[in-house]
Amino acid sequence: MAAGTPVWSVDPRTGKQREQVTLEAAPADVDAAVRAAHAARGALADRAARTAFLRAAADLLDAEAARVVETADAETALGPARLTGELARTTGQLRAFADAVDEGSYLDIRIDRADASLTPPRPELRRYKVPLGVVAVYAASNFPLAFSVPGGDTASALAAGCPVVVKAHPDHPAASELCASLLRRAAAAAGLPEAVVSVVHGFDAGLELIRHPLVAAAGFTGSVRGGRALFDAAAARPVPIPFHGELGSLNPVVVTPDAAAERAEEIGAGLAASVTLGNGQFCVKPGLVLVPEGAAGDRLAGALAKALGETGPGVLLDHRMRDAFAAGVAERAALPGVTAPVAAGAAGEHAVGAGCLAVPARALLAGGPYDLLLEECFGPVTVLVRYAGQDEAGAVLDRLAGNLSATLHVSSAEAEGAPGPAAALVARVTELAGRIVVNGWPTGVAVAPAQHHGGPYPAATSHSTSVGVTAIERWLRPVAYQSVPEGLLPPELREANPLGLPRRVTGTA
Amino acid sequence: MAAGTPVWSVDPRTGKQREQVTLEAAPADVDAAVRAAHAARGALADRAARTAFLRAAADLLDAEAARVVETADAETALGPARLTGELARTTGQLRAFADAVDEGSYLDIRIDRADASLTPPRPELRRYKVPLGVVAVYAASNFPLAFSVPGGDTASALAAGCPVVVKAHPDHPAASELCASLLRRAAAAAGLPEAVVSVVHGFDAGLELIRHPLVAAAGFTGSVRGGRALFDAAAARPVPIPFHGELGSLNPVVVTPDAAAERAEEIGAGLAASVTLGNGQFCVKPGLVLVPEGAAGDRLAGALAKALGETGPGVLLDHRMRDAFAAGVAERAALPGVTAPVAAGAAGEHAVGAGCLAVPARALLAGGPYDLLLEECFGPVTVLVRYAGQDEAGAVLDRLAGNLSATLHVSSAEAEGAPGPAAALVARVTELAGRIVVNGWPTGVAVAPAQHHGGPYPAATSHSTSVGVTAIERWLRPVAYQSVPEGLLPPELREANPLGLPRRVTGTA
Repeated sequence: MAAGTPVWSVDPRTGKQREQVTLEAAPADVDAAVRAAHAARGALADRAARTAFLRAAADLLDAEAARVVETADAETALGPARLTGELARTTGQLRAFADAVDEGSYLDIRIDRADASLTPPRPELRRYKVPLGVVAVYAASNFPLAFSVPGGDTASALAAGCPVVVKAHPDHPAASELCASLLRRAAAAAGLPEAVVSVVHGFDAGLELIRHPLVAAAGFTGSVRGGRALFDAAAARPVPIPFHGELGSLNPVVVTPDAAAERAEEIGAGLAASVTLGNGQFCVKPGLVLVPEGAAGDRLAGALAKALGETGPGVLLDHRMRDAFAAGVAERAALPGVTAPVAAGAAGEHAVGAGCLAVPARALLAGGPYDLLLEECFGPVTVLVRYAGQDEAGAVLDRLAGNLSATLHVSSAEAEGAPGPAAALVARVTELAGRIVVNGWPTGVAVAPAQHHGGPYPAATSHSTSVGVTAIERWLRPVAYQSVPEGLLPPELREANPLGLPRRVTGTA
Repeated sequence: MAAGTPVWSVDPRTGKQREQVTLEAAPADVDAAVRAAHAARGALADRAARTAFLRAAADLLDAEAARVVETADAETALGPARLTGELARTTGQLRAFADAVDEGSYLDIRIDRADASLTPPRPELRRYKVPLGVVAVYAASNFPLAFSVPGGDTASALAAGCPVVVKAHPDHPAASELCASLLRRAAAAAGLPEAVVSVVHGFDAGLELIRHPLVAAAGFTGSVRGGRALFDAAAARPVPIPFHGELGSLNPVVVTPDAAAERAEEIGAGLAASVTLGNGQFCVKPGLVLVPEGAAGDRLAGALAKALGETGPGVLLDHRMRDAFAAGVAERAALPGVTAPVAAGAAGEHAVGAGCLAVPARALLAGGPYDLLLEECFGPVTVLVRYAGQDEAGAVLDRLAGNLSATLHVSSAEAEGAPGPAAALVARVTELAGRIVVNGWPTGVAVAPAQHHGGPYPAATSHSTSVGVTAIERWLRPVAYQSVPEGLLPPELREANPLGLPRRVTGTA
């Protein structure tokens, strides 16, 4: 894991090396990539070129879909169907950010007219947002496209006008290089320097990148341990920079007694589908499910077990994850009082089987070793926590750290406002998570203007989103222009509004 | 400087203790204040009570203006005129934030209708922003009102729905306690717990506060050293929190050759007034002024020296600052090649005199000990850097860290777009600062919607503003509600829009 080490693409279905993609970057390589990106920022300031670039990138990725999906599948085992959908999401994102640049409200333009009648007199002020500079993007293992080289962090940063250097994830170096080459070709086609996007490989390169003086901000999707180490490095710099990391999440689900009574089987089956989607490798996989004790809860647990039992084995992203999954499940299952209605773990030489664990809330609340159940276990497993009443359920919620999502299953009467715990639960889980789902499942994070994919730490290291159009806000800072003559103003702020941008104006001309 | 140490109000005009105000807070005191604030957050969620509280606080402060100004003046020597203006700014801020809560666009409400025709289908999403929780506010020395207990950080946090614990500044403990009592009385009058605002004193208490698990964010105005220490503590927490610090700024000014030729005397006199405003104790005091070599620049320097020479001595906020000012000026003046056209420094037993230093750009660019000239010197002094051409001016700008403001003086022809360095300078200094002023002065930061008071580090530790209505954004985080039935939604997001809030809607019902 040092400069010059060969970077191999590995097939997780066999554990075999497919091809040597490149070498890990040396400090000089990282420095060169960042400097070239920094030098390209002026070109990227051209809005028309930027949107043309984003759209050309989407078109090229779509045109090369077969090759992109095949390459990503060969080194992630995520399957062509999932990857075809992920590519559509990725190109949709690129186009959505181009549209956002055209629309312009992300600039949050505000104009205050001078007003001599105020005490003190107000000068003319015109404010918009400018790009921060070079953005470092740390790609995710589990989304080789949508949260990697051509993913949301890259798309939003480029849309903001920030050149990007991506630290590729070692689980998909070939797909990373392929996507990077397409993005760079799209940049050239739009008349921009190719250096607006580049890719580096290697753990050490990632640390070099976060410490580089010309890197102005970072985006990250990955583990709590890796993300926190980079967050700490970003904060410890002589000039600290924003670090927008999406780290880890349990994604708690609460099933009310009335909901269980009303549709135990439906909830159990839906939960199984959500837990096993993408082989349990989603950051919003429901990892802890509060289910009432008693017959209805038992039926729910039974339906979940049945559906999980019918799920065939699957291949995780790499063998390290497979080993960690098997070990993590075993360690949890070994806790006294924890049962494994369906045993998850290694299946055959390369795959894993999905499963679930169950524990009484009062055992979990004993703390100590049981706190392990409050940590994310990446892969197709979930923990059912059987609770005896709202107080016990509340006590479990009180133990949770921040989450990307929290999900409630309520009865149809509760959904219509009938007395019950539902309303208080919505308020309670709002304190714990960035997205609240009712009578649905958290997996499937729509790319939409009202989306929020983030949440209290450790779900995220900042209060921003990594999905949806407001993700662009992470890469911008406001600047106010005071009494600046029209001819010296940036076009976005000129009185004549030559770019036709939305603006909020206070006072009269 | 430990729990139980007496906290004295000191008259900087005499250096004498006026009265013992209270004792420094013990860890248990800090804990009690934070827990009471945390418990009060539910009450503060009531928008009507919150706005009533903010307006009642403004009214009470205005009603008690004489006592507030007298108390603040006695321990800061800022003078009744300045403090009367600062109080008006402070109460204006409180009312402006109440208006912003009523208006509601700060919630950034976005609603996406469900759309089954999309791939994948989009669920209904409704997003707004919720308060973070208890906010720690670190008060400034130089604004005992507008950036202290009842100041912008407090007002914006309360407006966002966040209870506040203020760490008072030791330069004005009596004013801090008086203002806190008025804020707490206003809270009670609005039916809120008094614990929505409290004050603690003492250096150790400030550290306890930033580390308290129930503190969710912090605002700070002060020195680079103090701010960075607190920033580091905030980042090192098990759960890191946002730290919005305004630390230090040189506030560079560039005078173009044509501007100097056109109005050297006017610029020199204006500069003197800006440097000595508030006795040089503004965070936006121009501390480094790029003036062309040659006759016009000489006339500018002469006008500056004349005006500074006519400025009487003034009293700084405390004797520690006075000593630091005198030492800082002396250390800079001792650098070979640096001259002191008007010698700043101690004047008499308690006051200081204003002055300026001058240095050729080529000396400054030698670096080493000359880097001291690129650090803020708090008090009534500025450094003229005489440059030989645009390249030399640019080289000096390249050496600067981030700033709150950057100011350009250009000729009337340059202001109208005549060829010259002006346009490139606007773009260049935009990279260096949060506010760009042309043909004016940076002192006087209007409280206005388009204001931005922040800038690249060390001007600020985040990309937010501490002045103006967008300051409220610092204390909020987005939450998205997916497929949540109308009856379980917060009122702000209900389809019927019972609160009449502005919203952006995507798709059709």
